[in-house]
Amino acid sequence: MTYEQLFLQIKRKSSFLCVGLDTDLAKLPTFILNNTDPIFEFNKQIVDSTAPYAIAYKPNLAFYEAYGSKGWQSLEKTVQYIRKNYPEIFLIADAKRGDIGNTANMYAKAFFETLDFDAITLSPYMGADTVKPFLKYKGKWVIILALTSNESALDFQTMNDSTGQNLYQRVLQLGRQWGTHENVMFVTGATQAPLLKDIRHIIPHHFLLVPGVGAQGGSLEEVAENTLTPHCGIIVNSSREIIYASNGLDFAQAAAEKAKELQMKMKAILLHRNLI
Amino acid sequence: MTYEQLFLQIKRKSSFLCVGLDTDLAKLPTFILNNTDPIFEFNKQIVDSTAPYAIAYKPNLAFYEAYGSKGWQSLEKTVQYIRKNYPEIFLIADAKRGDIGNTANMYAKAFFETLDFDAITLSPYMGADTVKPFLKYKGKWVIILALTSNESALDFQTMNDSTGQNLYQRVLQLGRQWGTHENVMFVTGATQAPLLKDIRHIIPHHFLLVPGVGAQGGSLEEVAENTLTPHCGIIVNSSREIIYASNGLDFAQAAAEKAKELQMKMKAILLHRNLI
Repeated sequence: MTYEQLFLQIKRKSSFLCVGLDTDLAKLPTFILNNTDPIFEFNKQIVDSTAPYAIAYKPNLAFYEAYGSKGWQSLEKTVQYIRKNYPEIFLIADAKRGDIGNTANMYAKAFFETLDFDAITLSPYMGADTVKPFLKYKGKWVIILALTSNESALDFQTMNDSTGQNLYQRVLQLGRQWGTHENVMFVTGATQAPLLKDIRHIIPHHFLLVPGVGAQGGSLEEVAENTLTPHCGIIVNSSREIIYASNGLDFAQAAAEKAKELQMKMKAILLHRNLI
Repeated sequence: MTYEQLFLQIKRKSSFLCVGLDTDLAKLPTFILNNTDPIFEFNKQIVDSTAPYAIAYKPNLAFYEAYGSKGWQSLEKTVQYIRKNYPEIFLIADAKRGDIGNTANMYAKAFFETLDFDAITLSPYMGADTVKPFLKYKGKWVIILALTSNESALDFQTMNDSTGQNLYQRVLQLGRQWGTHENVMFVTGATQAPLLKDIRHIIPHHFLLVPGVGAQGGSLEEVAENTLTPHCGIIVNSSREIIYASNGLDFAQAAAEKAKELQMKMKAILLHRNLI
């Protein structure tokens, strides 16, 4: 998907919402467990009910790998289902891979060919070698971890060099050189909202993937205030708050209501900024 | 596997060799491709022929994920085969995962429960939260990326803070506090041999996983000289040099010869240091 196509979807749906598919068997409604593939069945119903309000879905690989090859089958079915029924959706593999050379080529094959994702999250620790093999795919994206929303993000990401530059700032500055705003995005944690303005200054045009709005805290308005661009430039993720809104028979309807609630807030923000 | 059990295996086999199972369909002997699961069949024959010389195997996840759930099936069969036939082997998932909280819990479940690996490689970018959930498993290990052997390792890993400390040194210093030398190892690239002495100074007791001896360059003797401890303290990996030693009918025999050649060098080193 191109930068323009992504912005077009955002305008059409008046939304920059990504729904995280962190599908955990232990948290699913019990009646879903009777299905032969409860993870896929849950995802299918969640997607069907929330697709009017979301421009992206983000399966979190760990939740599928926990069940080995069977979990990967559930993932493959989920990706195929979304691709077939909602071709407008931006599909993100939240995989946080990070390896080099031929290994990175194989990860790119896994997520961009075998599974037809639009984007993958990557960890930058090993540098440019981690990212570049993915950028050979036209219309595909990498989403590089920059400043994450967890407590121990401060262990390394905010480490200063002798010129006062942080590690995450260096990731942004090198990362923007590896590709362009048309194939590189960055993960930036919403709970670090005061820092978002600084991040936007370093990368004025790149899309940010913002986790941490919702269950992890973080204010949608504050994030938008500091990071919106003339082409929106942000995708805000919510996982548990949406997909586990209810664990009763009404789980899909409850998820839809929660997604709609977020989408209405996003619409108000987009209108206010004259983006729609 | 405990620290003591690992050292016992090293002494018994006079080896600290890990064979990397970067099993790439494009590089396999063509006759292997007639099998219903050529990746597993290749791994099985490689393991059977090299097990006398190796104390560890390290499947590289990317090479399995490239084939989706089928690739994961080949991985599962490989792990089960090694577990059943070579219970003494230290099994490393070269997965370089790096996520937090419940996601890290699910990765731990994937690699330590669903797949019965002894160890997993992890990327430290997101800090302690990435590592700690794995340390709850008794007898299991994390292997944290510190200084890698690729060219762009210098993008971030050697970044200095205002006190002159490198990022990789900080990873070592925090990493050793997250666990102990009985459940934490570090990845350190052999092509950076002059730096290995400094690394060993920071972590005198921890095992190092050293890739990059063989096809990626790096001298076994130089690595050993700078990093051996009274309990060996290093595991040296070789992948392509062993598993693709020949792509003819003799591929398994050729792999065994290459593995034996490395093991003989290791034996000489261990003897010279009075470790066996």
